Amino acid sequence: MRTSIATVCLAGGLVEKLHACAAAGFDGVEIMDADLIAAHESPEEIRALCARLGLSIDMFQPFRDLEGVDEPTFARNLRRAEAKLDVMERLGADLLLVCSNAGTATVDDDEVAARQLAALADLAAPRGIRLAYEALAWGRYVDDPLHAYRIVRLADRPNLGTCLDSFHVLSRGHDPRVIEEIDGDAIFFVQLSDAPALDMDVLSWSRHHRLFPGEGAFPLTDFVSSLVRTGYAGPLSLEVFNDTFRQTDVVRTAAHARRSLTWLEDRAAAADGRSEGRIVGPQPARGVDFVEIGGADLAEVERILEQLGFAFAGRHRSKPVRLWTAGAARIIVNEQRREREPGLTGLGLTVDDAAAAFARARALGAPQVYRRTYLGEQDLPAVAAPDGTEVFWSDRPEEASWIGEFVGGVEAPGALSGVIDHINLGYRWHEFDEAVLFAGAVLSLSTESASDVPGPGGLVRSQVMRTEDGVLRVPINLAPPTAAAPARHVAIRCDDAIAAARAARAAGLPFLPIPDNYYDDLEARFGDMVEPGLLAELRELGLFYDREEDGEFLHFYAPVTGDVFVEVVERRGGYDGYGASNAPVRLAAQRLAQA
Amino acid sequence: MRTSIATVCLAGGLVEKLHACAAAGFDGVEIMDADLIAAHESPEEIRALCARLGLSIDMFQPFRDLEGVDEPTFARNLRRAEAKLDVMERLGADLLLVCSNAGTATVDDDEVAARQLAALADLAAPRGIRLAYEALAWGRYVDDPLHAYRIVRLADRPNLGTCLDSFHVLSRGHDPRVIEEIDGDAIFFVQLSDAPALDMDVLSWSRHHRLFPGEGAFPLTDFVSSLVRTGYAGPLSLEVFNDTFRQTDVVRTAAHARRSLTWLEDRAAAADGRSEGRIVGPQPARGVDFVEIGGADLAEVERILEQLGFAFAGRHRSKPVRLWTAGAARIIVNEQRREREPGLTGLGLTVDDAAAAFARARALGAPQVYRRTYLGEQDLPAVAAPDGTEVFWSDRPEEASWIGEFVGGVEAPGALSGVIDHINLGYRWHEFDEAVLFAGAVLSLSTESASDVPGPGGLVRSQVMRTEDGVLRVPINLAPPTAAAPARHVAIRCDDAIAAARAARAAGLPFLPIPDNYYDDLEARFGDMVEPGLLAELRELGLFYDREEDGEFLHFYAPVTGDVFVEVVERRGGYDGYGASNAPVRLAAQRLAQA
Repeated sequence: MRTSIATVCLAGGLVEKLHACAAAGFDGVEIMDADLIAAHESPEEIRALCARLGLSIDMFQPFRDLEGVDEPTFARNLRRAEAKLDVMERLGADLLLVCSNAGTATVDDDEVAARQLAALADLAAPRGIRLAYEALAWGRYVDDPLHAYRIVRLADRPNLGTCLDSFHVLSRGHDPRVIEEIDGDAIFFVQLSDAPALDMDVLSWSRHHRLFPGEGAFPLTDFVSSLVRTGYAGPLSLEVFNDTFRQTDVVRTAAHARRSLTWLEDRAAAADGRSEGRIVGPQPARGVDFVEIGGADLAEVERILEQLGFAFAGRHRSKPVRLWTAGAARIIVNEQRREREPGLTGLGLTVDDAAAAFARARALGAPQVYRRTYLGEQDLPAVAAPDGTEVFWSDRPEEASWIGEFVGGVEAPGALSGVIDHINLGYRWHEFDEAVLFAGAVLSLSTESASDVPGPGGLVRSQVMRTEDGVLRVPINLAPPTAAAPARHVAIRCDDAIAAARAARAAGLPFLPIPDNYYDDLEARFGDMVEPGLLAELRELGLFYDREEDGEFLHFYAPVTGDVFVEVVERRGGYDGYGASNAPVRLAAQRLAQA
Repeated sequence: MRTSIATVCLAGGLVEKLHACAAAGFDGVEIMDADLIAAHESPEEIRALCARLGLSIDMFQPFRDLEGVDEPTFARNLRRAEAKLDVMERLGADLLLVCSNAGTATVDDDEVAARQLAALADLAAPRGIRLAYEALAWGRYVDDPLHAYRIVRLADRPNLGTCLDSFHVLSRGHDPRVIEEIDGDAIFFVQLSDAPALDMDVLSWSRHHRLFPGEGAFPLTDFVSSLVRTGYAGPLSLEVFNDTFRQTDVVRTAAHARRSLTWLEDRAAAADGRSEGRIVGPQPARGVDFVEIGGADLAEVERILEQLGFAFAGRHRSKPVRLWTAGAARIIVNEQRREREPGLTGLGLTVDDAAAAFARARALGAPQVYRRTYLGEQDLPAVAAPDGTEVFWSDRPEEASWIGEFVGGVEAPGALSGVIDHINLGYRWHEFDEAVLFAGAVLSLSTESASDVPGPGGLVRSQVMRTEDGVLRVPINLAPPTAAAPARHVAIRCDDAIAAARAARAAGLPFLPIPDNYYDDLEARFGDMVEPGLLAELRELGLFYDREEDGEFLHFYAPVTGDVFVEVVERRGGYDGYGASNAPVRLAAQRLAQA
């Protein structure tokens, strides 16, 4: 389907927005009048620019509150509308959005609304302009898509149709299938936005919390499937406004927006068994191949890995890169990243088909990452996530993989053996939603649960994304608005966290100082439930503990270096969480350790 | 009344929080268990610190979900509660908060709840510990303060009372007077928070949007008046959490919190005609004495003032400070502020009693500002607002005021003559609420209206505060979370903005470039309503225009210097707004001019 985006989705001036939309690969745009009014370019100049950029102007949105009013008011509205038809002719736009009256309507009569819409349609027809009438969820008399459609049919003009907006349909709790009652030919335009599940008044929800498809909780795949069944053949357009999107670079937001549409169309086509609209299918992770810590000087990181019981598995044959392993858990230490403090800069995933995983990511607009490889080295396909984190895919068996490129490692295994349990990614406030969409669309992870963790500097929102089987778990942490991104970490899961902690202490690892009050609280909460002596042992060693009905969680943290650290965890029984209740204590202890 | 604050209101570690509470002048604190658990100091050490700081520990809040459960669950809950009674003895805290069960309750029976509360009360009694039972607004079976009170009476224990929280009472839409049905002796504790009027689920509203008294829309004055009528004699305590307070310095937040309680107690006492709790009464502004623009180099500011038609009214006898006037509008240009770019750094207000205005501000915790004055100079009393803006008061007639200290000005008036219409203050995201409280409590302004203005970098929230008569109008603009504070401006109201614009153009003032599209839109909206030729004149001169039913607004902007600029406005008829609909165009034009 053709793709379009409302200029109101982006920050900046109209000309910048149009360039960004074209660069992101949109076919067309909806122009919001407010953007045109603030622009110094004439409508003719905007028209010419769009033509040069290969963007169609799919819709123009110039006013509110046309219909459902008394005749003198309508005469004034018509005068205003006519002036906007002039602008549309200058712009070369042929579709006018008319939203149901939410402000000034005083006449609750479908006949009147239809007659007034018909009058404007008749004015527009000789100019070759069509009208799309849309029910706003907070329209005074018309707030339902089928109601708007009834009025359109009543008006009975060939150049009058309806516009559907997923927000206005789904925020009212309608089943998306209701739109199948509308004749596809009568749907002149479709606007899409997602939104988080919030229980609040619909106008504020709409104004402040819309999201791009794949970032929220709306059943948009079903919506698009139903839309396809109506026979609708027009563009899918994004109309998203919220409190964060304008904070980011316009080019980045446009690319991100385009990704959300590609993902949505693919999902809907897959659900319906259609091939049109599909991209290369998802390649869910079968395992975590490695995590990369990058930075200019990683001596401290390597000392910590050694103290944790990682084994040094060799240096790369041709690059300043070293490999450390703890059983099947591999951490690459990459000193090629000269420009930065130590950080979690990349992850490698094992998939069935690495080329397909890469092709999907490229189709979803992720930029390719080039790394210099030499003859005989494995060339892992890789892309950059929106925040720059690099994602690599491998489909070779271990014995044939890049691992063989590392030489000079010790033979003996280290004291720690395990797998990578989860990779915790911290983002700044305005990067969170795009990280969620990237993880869903490119990494094929699903959203698990979200929680708010009170840290010493504000609430940290944590959204877990994972494969169903738990092979790849990515808790995504969102910083408070004015804070830096939270430090990231990689958690190694082993069979015996107590033994691992003892060994690490013996090797000199500095542990986070955990207050006695924390252990007193553990006694109060769990003293009668845990095996005797366990809590004393946790206190002695400085381990964290959590417990759910079906299991237990033991964990501890190595010191933060740059903005990355390593956690060691043990899951007992069916414990499936991440020790979120301990996060405030951990955050306070890290703050103290870094002060 | 005694004042207290929950440690959860503040950022940082427990020890920092306690120091900040003491510095702000609170009498006591409520300690949240999570703060204690994350602290490295033992309960005994915290107790000793509070004693040294002169803070009583008024309440301890260690767990949730005690009552309304089956007997085996209750036995476990009691075990956990007993461990917390041990902690309270170590802390020296004698009041335990028990919130109504919102998570695990399965037994909807007041008798059971009462019996279980009584059991804990009996355990606590020998230790000299009392219990305060509070109805959470989202409690499973108990969500109403009178219901909690009925259960307390049913349990009938001398050491069991109730805790009232204004949020839980007022968020449910209860009339504050319902609490007068509770015997004051049975009210063991009172927690206060304000909140904006939002239509959303009460749990999210409570978690993310609580405010300090005076920042929101709750009838807290009535709440406190009703509370006084019950005979309650305990402390007023603040329990406020939201997404911004933790972003600010703990000392500043504590001082701000304390101000909110002083203001609230004063308001309630004034409403009830009590003298206890009063501070010096408000001194509403009778006029704007001056606005000060400060900075290291203000040559450009002065050139602009001259081009605008201000008259140079002299240099200060002893300081690098100059005065410019446009009729009754006075702008002081102060180059003593060497450390900064040009900005709106101060304002002077005319009041009936400057000493009283100053004393009130000091009682509300605003720090005094000292300026060096010499013999024969007027020593204006002044304080600093939380963001550093200085506020001066004067009660002398003009001929006896500081104005006489400026010498060497030109005799002839400038081309511009008017008064200061409004002073627009921009704040960063996390400074907004405290700015609103400061303007309300210290400047005695009331909240008028709020609107969201889409700027090129995000939504700018604008909250107008003013005196009833409009002598002092202060629109407060809130930046999007990741943005800098919006530029501030002072608007001069004159009788003929067109003439003022012509004169300023003739004098060489660079005008903001306003797009033709803007004037085309004015034609569309108002072409049939305005006097002939007006719109053409606006277009020619580059003026903005707005219109309401009862009047018109003409305005234009001088260039931004540093982060301050001057606006010239003309109000025709009863127009009472600020041209908010033009703000997006103005913001885009300013962005362009500064690019």
